[in-house]
Amino acid sequence: MTDDEANKNRLHNEAMKALKAERDELMRTKTERRGLLIVHTGDGKGKSTAAFGMVVRALGWGQRIGIVQFIKGKWKTGERNFFTKFPDLVRYEVMGEGFTWETQDRARDIAAAAAAWATAKEMIADPELEFVLLDELNIALRYEYIDIADVVAALKARPLDKHICITGRNARPALIEIADLVTEMTLVKHPFQQGMKVQRGVDF
Amino acid sequence: MTDDEANKNRLHNEAMKALKAERDELMRTKTERRGLLIVHTGDGKGKSTAAFGMVVRALGWGQRIGIVQFIKGKWKTGERNFFTKFPDLVRYEVMGEGFTWETQDRARDIAAAAAAWATAKEMIADPELEFVLLDELNIALRYEYIDIADVVAALKARPLDKHICITGRNARPALIEIADLVTEMTLVKHPFQQGMKVQRGVDF
Repeated sequence: MTDDEANKNRLHNEAMKALKAERDELMRTKTERRGLLIVHTGDGKGKSTAAFGMVVRALGWGQRIGIVQFIKGKWKTGERNFFTKFPDLVRYEVMGEGFTWETQDRARDIAAAAAAWATAKEMIADPELEFVLLDELNIALRYEYIDIADVVAALKARPLDKHICITGRNARPALIEIADLVTEMTLVKHPFQQGMKVQRGVDF
Repeated sequence: MTDDEANKNRLHNEAMKALKAERDELMRTKTERRGLLIVHTGDGKGKSTAAFGMVVRALGWGQRIGIVQFIKGKWKTGERNFFTKFPDLVRYEVMGEGFTWETQDRARDIAAAAAAWATAKEMIADPELEFVLLDELNIALRYEYIDIADVVAALKARPLDKHICITGRNARPALIEIADLVTEMTLVKHPFQQGMKVQRGVDF
């Protein structure tokens, strides 16, 4: 090892030691444990996908899960193929009728959303389920298929130890306000754009 | 149903019909199928988690997966508990030594990163694996534990049908440049912040 390299290593190691002390001090103050209300929103990809990743983690710790899909219809998806293999651990309900531009029927969309929300409330109350995923609920709220005040009330009244994750773009401000953890997925680059000119604000 | 409500439904249904025609036209132009290079970056949560969700989807379609974790050490994680239950489908390699502020040893971090990268290259070349996840590779690249030029060359030379997902904050520009799909996860609200004052730019 050269002197320069050894010096670089020494400086790095000292900096990391200081960082570790700082982090330990920070973590010491974070002692509260309770179920979190988590929202994944934004125009980028990864909102539902990250929620499925959380389901995997929860399953890895032996937790039981409830999933309601508010928009996705009966077509096959990889996540559905996979999670429905574990019926004892995952209650998986696909209750949408497809995207709004597929159904082209507002009355039917509203009826489907109401039924999905009834199931969601059941899961939120079910003491057997430790994690509940309400996939694309934000879409149903955005189109006012479900009343935001009802949703906020049910979420606030949830059992204290229950984790709930809600996905979909255009999360309503009232939901963000009561959430514990909100992540926005932002599109930086998408394969659809290829062949198009690279644009500031989109591609870099 | 009131006249007003019926009218609202009719207008909605017509708008959705027009949107559907637009989307069908758009989708008609998107015919290329090939393995994607996907990057999840940003300071928010959900980068690795969304990658685990993609693994679930791929598993749901019967694909085989390779995962290398570049930073996470030997401690138990939910994803590890879960995915290691499927050794025939998932090759899962935890090759990190922990966070840089835990190891406090740059030489050891570099050795671990080099070994992890060797395994990653093996997976990229392995025709049995359809999806390869290089979890937290961005961290190893940021600290220059691995040469970015080597990584870019290997990714560019990958088999055409292979999906690769790379996670971690501070993705290098050279990586973003060759990626097909880049998502930035942005922190909107985090439980750590509670008890602190709500701040513009962070909480809303």
